[in-house]
Amino acid sequence: MENIDTGEITVGVVGLGLMGCSFIASLLIAGHNVKAIAPLTEDMESASERVHNHLTVCENAGLLNKPIESYLAQVVITEDYGHLSTCSLVLECVIEIPAIKKSVYQKIEKVVTKNTVIASNTSAIPISELQNHLEHPGRFLGIHWAEPAYLSRFMEITCGSSSDIEHANWVYELAHCWGKEPTLLRKDLRGFITNRLMYAVYREGLSLVEKGEATLEDVDKAFRYDAGSWMTLMGIFRRMDFMGLADQFEIFKTVFPKLCNDDNITPLMQHMVDIDARGTRNLLGLYPYTEEEARKWEEAFVLFNMEIFKLAEMYPSKREKKPVAEIQYL
Amino acid sequence: MENIDTGEITVGVVGLGLMGCSFIASLLIAGHNVKAIAPLTEDMESASERVHNHLTVCENAGLLNKPIESYLAQVVITEDYGHLSTCSLVLECVIEIPAIKKSVYQKIEKVVTKNTVIASNTSAIPISELQNHLEHPGRFLGIHWAEPAYLSRFMEITCGSSSDIEHANWVYELAHCWGKEPTLLRKDLRGFITNRLMYAVYREGLSLVEKGEATLEDVDKAFRYDAGSWMTLMGIFRRMDFMGLADQFEIFKTVFPKLCNDDNITPLMQHMVDIDARGTRNLLGLYPYTEEEARKWEEAFVLFNMEIFKLAEMYPSKREKKPVAEIQYL
Repeated sequence: MENIDTGEITVGVVGLGLMGCSFIASLLIAGHNVKAIAPLTEDMESASERVHNHLTVCENAGLLNKPIESYLAQVVITEDYGHLSTCSLVLECVIEIPAIKKSVYQKIEKVVTKNTVIASNTSAIPISELQNHLEHPGRFLGIHWAEPAYLSRFMEITCGSSSDIEHANWVYELAHCWGKEPTLLRKDLRGFITNRLMYAVYREGLSLVEKGEATLEDVDKAFRYDAGSWMTLMGIFRRMDFMGLADQFEIFKTVFPKLCNDDNITPLMQHMVDIDARGTRNLLGLYPYTEEEARKWEEAFVLFNMEIFKLAEMYPSKREKKPVAEIQYL
Repeated sequence: MENIDTGEITVGVVGLGLMGCSFIASLLIAGHNVKAIAPLTEDMESASERVHNHLTVCENAGLLNKPIESYLAQVVITEDYGHLSTCSLVLECVIEIPAIKKSVYQKIEKVVTKNTVIASNTSAIPISELQNHLEHPGRFLGIHWAEPAYLSRFMEITCGSSSDIEHANWVYELAHCWGKEPTLLRKDLRGFITNRLMYAVYREGLSLVEKGEATLEDVDKAFRYDAGSWMTLMGIFRRMDFMGLADQFEIFKTVFPKLCNDDNITPLMQHMVDIDARGTRNLLGLYPYTEEEARKWEEAFVLFNMEIFKLAEMYPSKREKKPVAEIQYL
């Protein structure tokens, strides 16, 4: 990791929506030169301002060590894919429609070298599936960022069935230069890690609410104030160590058989989709929102992220020793 | 809530282990007079120092507005159950063995009035079951605290099948005077809310590790840095609103059928119990620990709790409006 000079590595970003511009800010802060490709002409107009706004947030958070203009000098915003020719890594973050992604990959592969790593930020389409659209699929990976990209330590690097693990290892090292605590999935696990585990929570939570056993609000309160009080510090398995494993084992035995095992979505969730509820985006969600409230949640999320980012920094995980359980048992 | 004068309400605590002493600190800070009953003689000796230590932590966290000695003057530590006669509420937090709890309830009921609310901190035994040991079961509730009690907003109030809801409502109001964001379960749900939902995560997480699809460390990293970045702010359902509900619905449809549905405990967990792994307590857990590392985790947990407690305060939930979904749909 110490040997990586980010100034020597040019990174391409294709797709300059909210997420793409957020990645760009993170990459610029890490010292990369960035080629930012706008597949949509309207993004050409807004991208520069978006990147500027993100960098302003970073400046206020004390993440910058030079003026915003110096960072902006490291990025080229263009519609011309040709600029990608010098890139060692290209990040795709266009809309989650396979046909569109396919055409983007073709345009990228036309100009980059054979060794350029190409990665998608998708969370909806399996990497192994997207990989089929590439001429050189071994160089293709999933790199899944969390928003806002410059204020989150989370990053999931995922191999598809024909990804070259060397490329994944390189991105894994590089991600540390971006201030990430990355995870590396050698297999294309559906839902990756966090989503997969969170969906287990959503299934159980929706089931409890659906059966009238708990309210939405109480589930949220319990998670905010209980799980929230150790999540960022420990994750789930160290939490088990901290609580002592034997007691939990006894409770697992009685509670596991009571957990929801339904493959089907609850009628509550179906109803929300039927009425086109898009949450804070269209003010129609599980909770009610006014325009102002939705805006306040957006603002609170950015602020909270900044705070939890700083807080996490005080409790570093470093690269931890291999867990005993995996050496001894697995 | 504004009408509650905590100075007029004497609270009893039976069981002066680590948890009991932590509750006492929280109750003293809230302004209650406390009768602390030691069922074990050895606790008589240590309880006073423990409470003092907890209050010192609170003082350092800026939670006190008078000297520690003034708080200590509000508590009587004794082996004599007779002191409970003036209590409006008695909290039991003795060892999780039904026979011992039963004998404690008999001693409590002998001295208190018929209207005194009696509550257990149990997380392992159903409230409806414990309730059978009481002469007046209607006054019996579960009041489940999170540690450290004075630095956590979490509190689950749970009714057993014959609990009087009026008592539960009174404790719910009172808990706000203790700085809690309580949840109220009208039914004796196995595992209450948080544990129930977290067990769904543990089941899925253990299953992924067991199948070699993810490592313990990567699961923990993903949870720390992804789920951790919004958990304390939003809880799970507001998070769904924030992400937009329709996209998640599509992913639910593909991922729910892939989630683990096993009733059985994984061999990994069975193995940990077989080798008597008690995590940080005996330095043998899913992760390895030295004495010093275990101590550091204990310290980090207290510090982190203090920080997240303060952070949560900046993002108040207040008593939120009723969720739309429950009005419209349920």
